[in-house]
Amino acid sequence: MGHFSSKNSFITDDFLLQSEFSKILYHDYAKDLPIIDYHNHLPPHQIRSNQQFETISEVWLAGDHYKWRAMRTLGISEKFITGNGSDREKFEKWASTVPYTVRNPLYHWTHLELLRYFGIEESLSEKSASPIYEACNYQLSQEEFRTQGLLKKMKVEVVCTTDDPIDSLENHRKMSESKAELLMFPAFRPDKAYAVENPQNYLDYLGKLENVTGLSINSYEDLKSALQNRIEFFHQNGCRLADHGLEQLYFFEKEAFNLEKLFQQLRSKNELTVHEIQYFKFKTLEFLCKEYHKKGWVQQFHLGALRNTNSRQLSTLGPDTGYDSIGDFEQAKALAGFLNSLDKTNQLSKTILYNLNPRDNEVFATMTGNFNDGSVKGKMQFGSGWWYLDQLDGMEKQLNALSNMSLLSCFIGMLTDSRSFLSFPRHEYFRRILCNLIGNDVEKGLLPADEKWLGKIVADICYFNAKNYFDFSADNFQV
Amino acid sequence: MGHFSSKNSFITDDFLLQSEFSKILYHDYAKDLPIIDYHNHLPPHQIRSNQQFETISEVWLAGDHYKWRAMRTLGISEKFITGNGSDREKFEKWASTVPYTVRNPLYHWTHLELLRYFGIEESLSEKSASPIYEACNYQLSQEEFRTQGLLKKMKVEVVCTTDDPIDSLENHRKMSESKAELLMFPAFRPDKAYAVENPQNYLDYLGKLENVTGLSINSYEDLKSALQNRIEFFHQNGCRLADHGLEQLYFFEKEAFNLEKLFQQLRSKNELTVHEIQYFKFKTLEFLCKEYHKKGWVQQFHLGALRNTNSRQLSTLGPDTGYDSIGDFEQAKALAGFLNSLDKTNQLSKTILYNLNPRDNEVFATMTGNFNDGSVKGKMQFGSGWWYLDQLDGMEKQLNALSNMSLLSCFIGMLTDSRSFLSFPRHEYFRRILCNLIGNDVEKGLLPADEKWLGKIVADICYFNAKNYFDFSADNFQV
Amino acid sequence: MGHFSSKNSFITDDFLLQSEFSKILYHDYAKDLPIIDYHNHLPPHQIRSNQQFETISEVWLAGDHYKWRAMRTLGISEKFITGNGSDREKFEKWASTVPYTVRNPLYHWTHLELLRYFGIEESLSEKSASPIYEACNYQLSQEEFRTQGLLKKMKVEVVCTTDDPIDSLENHRKMSESKAELLMFPAFRPDKAYAVENPQNYLDYLGKLENVTGLSINSYEDLKSALQNRIEFFHQNGCRLADHGLEQLYFFEKEAFNLEKLFQQLRSKNELTVHEIQYFKFKTLEFLCKEYHKKGWVQQFHLGALRNTNSRQLSTLGPDTGYDSIGDFEQAKALAGFLNSLDKTNQLSKTILYNLNPRDNEVFATMTGNFNDGSVKGKMQFGSGWWYLDQLDGMEKQLNALSNMSLLSCFIGMLTDSRSFLSFPRHEYFRRILCNLIGNDVEKGLLPADEKWLGKIVADICYFNAKNYFDFSADNFQV
Repeated sequence: MGHFSSKNSFITDDFLLQSEFSKILYHDYAKDLPIIDYHNHLPPHQIRSNQQFETISEVWLAGDHYKWRAMRTLGISEKFITGNGSDREKFEKWASTVPYTVRNPLYHWTHLELLRYFGIEESLSEKSASPIYEACNYQLSQEEFRTQGLLKKMKVEVVCTTDDPIDSLENHRKMSESKAELLMFPAFRPDKAYAVENPQNYLDYLGKLENVTGLSINSYEDLKSALQNRIEFFHQNGCRLADHGLEQLYFFEKEAFNLEKLFQQLRSKNELTVHEIQYFKFKTLEFLCKEYHKKGWVQQFHLGALRNTNSRQLSTLGPDTGYDSIGDFEQAKALAGFLNSLDKTNQLSKTILYNLNPRDNEVFATMTGNFNDGSVKGKMQFGSGWWYLDQLDGMEKQLNALSNMSLLSCFIGMLTDSRSFLSFPRHEYFRRILCNLIGNDVEKGLLPADEKWLGKIVADICYFNAKNYFDFSADNFQV
Repeated sequence: MGHFSSKNSFITDDFLLQSEFSKILYHDYAKDLPIIDYHNHLPPHQIRSNQQFETISEVWLAGDHYKWRAMRTLGISEKFITGNGSDREKFEKWASTVPYTVRNPLYHWTHLELLRYFGIEESLSEKSASPIYEACNYQLSQEEFRTQGLLKKMKVEVVCTTDDPIDSLENHRKMSESKAELLMFPAFRPDKAYAVENPQNYLDYLGKLENVTGLSINSYEDLKSALQNRIEFFHQNGCRLADHGLEQLYFFEKEAFNLEKLFQQLRSKNELTVHEIQYFKFKTLEFLCKEYHKKGWVQQFHLGALRNTNSRQLSTLGPDTGYDSIGDFEQAKALAGFLNSLDKTNQLSKTILYNLNPRDNEVFATMTGNFNDGSVKGKMQFGSGWWYLDQLDGMEKQLNALSNMSLLSCFIGMLTDSRSFLSFPRHEYFRRILCNLIGNDVEKGLLPADEKWLGKIVADICYFNAKNYFDFSADNFQV
Repeated sequence: MGHFSSKNSFITDDFLLQSEFSKILYHDYAKDLPIIDYHNHLPPHQIRSNQQFETISEVWLAGDHYKWRAMRTLGISEKFITGNGSDREKFEKWASTVPYTVRNPLYHWTHLELLRYFGIEESLSEKSASPIYEACNYQLSQEEFRTQGLLKKMKVEVVCTTDDPIDSLENHRKMSESKAELLMFPAFRPDKAYAVENPQNYLDYLGKLENVTGLSINSYEDLKSALQNRIEFFHQNGCRLADHGLEQLYFFEKEAFNLEKLFQQLRSKNELTVHEIQYFKFKTLEFLCKEYHKKGWVQQFHLGALRNTNSRQLSTLGPDTGYDSIGDFEQAKALAGFLNSLDKTNQLSKTILYNLNPRDNEVFATMTGNFNDGSVKGKMQFGSGWWYLDQLDGMEKQLNALSNMSLLSCFIGMLTDSRSFLSFPRHEYFRRILCNLIGNDVEKGLLPADEKWLGKIVADICYFNAKNYFDFSADNFQV
């Protein structure tokens, strides 16, 4: 990177580390640990095929709805966001947006990613756009900048992708067979299996589920069999983790509807009422969670997103294009009821709860404590700052709520939840924030300056707790 | 102010500015900019008539329910708050309260206002009450302390008052004709046009609307025509901005009631059900917002106040006397639905959303991003800390949520929302807080120390963004 | 404690005090004041009998569900928490947990309590467990470590326990008769008198109420008479304070059900509907609150806990064993309605409102202001950080919300809410945090450095406001 000044970046070695003790914790205990990225949305085929990218726009802008929202806010035409602008034009528009992202996490992420992957220390702006574009593209043309190389550069040991029950998992299996250093596991995300709002879409999905299982699904019992079948298939293909995205969890004290009747209504393309939908979701999730428990999986719940708010753009661009926001759903009572419905028969798996509205941090942090049963360290986890909360303030609030209401020391730490191969410095970001909080506490006299003790806790949160919590092993694949 | 020590005030030049970079940003980029106060409750006739005040109690205590609540909390009799105590007595009681307002924004506002308008550096207390009372009253008797002088002293360029559809706007028109330097525009606040909770009150209001429009209002269509008529009238009298105060927005996916039937029920003085009221509000607001869009206006929504909680005092003192508080209404889903109902046909105006409960900051900050369409910089705005949130903590939280979830750089900044001519140092307060946050980020190494870049963003937020966002021009008045 | 190094503790004289002014405020104005602990759950008989404890486990671990939750989270078997492990084993398990409580309030509480009661400066861990266990137990065998001695050591002047209407108050009466220095008052907590969810349990309770009053309770009017009878009895036995624990308050604008009919349904062991239960609670509370007003009592409401979430453990261990968490109930509207239903006839007592979800801080802080009527300083109180919020962050948030939305200077301050005789250093913890906040404001230039003024406000909050607010006097007992 000869033409970039090497002193330019504001991201110094001690970025985010405000006290001496924080620096020690980060540099001596956190920095060099490998990464277990136990939840993300990376495309398995891009990993397996060790894909090469032609332009940085391809790997950095396509698919990143955080950047899209920023550009739309600034008044940039959709042509240069998701439209038919060229890759160069899109990069230039993004570059001209960056100076306007001051104080947004995008400003930090952008420069951290340019620095860590491409060694670029210059600030990105309209002025620097062209040389940075060329420099990144050149590097991307090198072998070590293929997908597996990008992950290796960041010391990624494990990735868990997010997969639909109907997925073939072909890429995971082939990756496993290739004996690659990187472990890639699927995660079971059955949201469509209970997305009964639209009967026609649901029936289409059931058709696919029939195809992939070879089973007929004519009754609710059939549906359960088909899902069991896929859980077994996922298990054989290395899966040890499930995930679910919902506005909120549902719980009914007593039998409220007949599930078979609801299922037949769907088959007749009749819409269910709001309560019927909730009941269907509750019971199907309850069933699934008991199956996970049999398999010894970990289960995740991502709760509280208000999705697809913009119908004009939904019809043009589809879902996950930057029109989702933070909701304000009621969470506590049904979440407790749901978890208890599993716990009362001792069928509650290790569970990670993520909330999208930071106002719910304390509800979630204390909820985990209601179902820790002494069976294992940190059985119930309050998950790391998710989506909009995956930034300095959001992570600090999550870490503080977790510290105050539960045990920080048992936390399994960070995940990227990302669609991009360039997002892995977020682990560095998290580790710096974590070390900064603990180190500052020492500087303020809130904790004894016991480096070994606090260093171990930091290392546990950054790596070892996740390592022990999950059952991730190359042997999981049953060929 | 010879008899006041000139070193007394804790409000120094660098008040609220904790880092060197913050001081540079404030003193070199923010301090001297004019003020566009795009939302307040100043009485138009007091501005137009260039009113003089006899006592500081008149301009500072009468109408300020923040101060009233503080005095009631301290146990001061209503006689000296809203009762028949003399102006001097009321001032003395307020002065004796001030030392008890430590850490409340009133403590800062009080001393900032005494300093900026009257040059008083002494702390206000029982002891200093009498000389300060005299000194202020003397100055208020000078020409330059008439209303227009008070505004000029603070470099106010534009004020937008808040006006009912039935208002004559006579003061705005006359002010415009007088070619005064200060621009005063009305804002259209039609809350009473959909306040259908009490049919009798509503019919009384419709009667007034008939008088002022000269139209009969015998049907819902007539109501729409009358409102259209007043929107046109407001537009001709310079208005480019609407405002609405609601507990929450409402949204119905499908037609739930027949509007004409609801209207006739009101005409027969029959109370509507809760859902009927909500539907009436939803449809009437939807209609109004589409009319604003035709006119190119900006629309504001102030959401989340729980008003008139104290029926004993409501019957004695009326509304807006200090018995309103922060509510905890559900906001996200209906707000998204409402905005989408306008956006889906591309009839969504530039919009400013204000929330009263800080727990909703993140919902509001992310909601704006769902409807930014790249048409204009900062189309959807997360409004500045409103009412109870208009203080150091509240403004910092709003600025942080805005920064993290959207683009701070596109923010149109501060407004007083005030009933008092002495409230304009709140712009200074806001600017100091803004500069402090950004400057501290630089000092912490979170942002590069690029003064020109950050200074421009500060200036944009303090003045230029609002200047470009609103269509405020002397030519708006069509005489 | 000869065998412990005297320099070991991170809890220095200036613990939590970050600025010079904070140190002055704490050491010169707060530290030495006595304690009025106006709400706790200490067992009256243990105080009256001046009980001695054999082991620190008995006084420190038995009954402390904060510690239990931490141990369960770490994966420790229930045997060593609430099970049949020995006192020594339980202490060792707790000791081995302590290093994992980093950043949790338990870490601070643990070391503050060991230091203040036992002079132990060593950090508690597996390694130090045994000598600390011995040292504490030895001290507990001394006379001055009996319950009254433990309270005296902390300068406790008044304790208010929490008592059911059916309690005999024998211990309070005897304690009063003994002319002990310590004043112990009962508080009236009638939760079971409106716990009508389970008719059978309710009838059992009514039976006990009949026994203790000697009255038959065959109608709702009878119930009211019985409660009146107990209020009178409590009053004669020194009580001046009531308390209530509820998910939320309820309010109905109009008569919704016939109370007598609801009561007879309960008598026939028929379950009430959700709304009937809410109505019953609303009306019964309204009745009780008007009775308190007649007596000049203070009333407390603890709102927002989600209790007994874990049915497996509830059936084994019973309530209050660590399976409760923070709820997200709607609070504002019904709370306002309820308070107004008392205020409108001027029957609203002095009231303390506690919330469990910090997201409701601003609702509660502003709600108090709606019903302050100038009759007395700080009539309506936003209570100190409760339960999960009784830690550094939670207390700072409560103090900040209170400061911003109301008058901090009128605050009646801290209470332990504790079941343990070793929890009283929480007053010290609170006082340090309070002095730190105010002192830091001075250092930042947000407040004038006026020591006398701020020192007085600190002393008021730590002691004198509570002293004046409550009617606690040895003469309250009518023998």
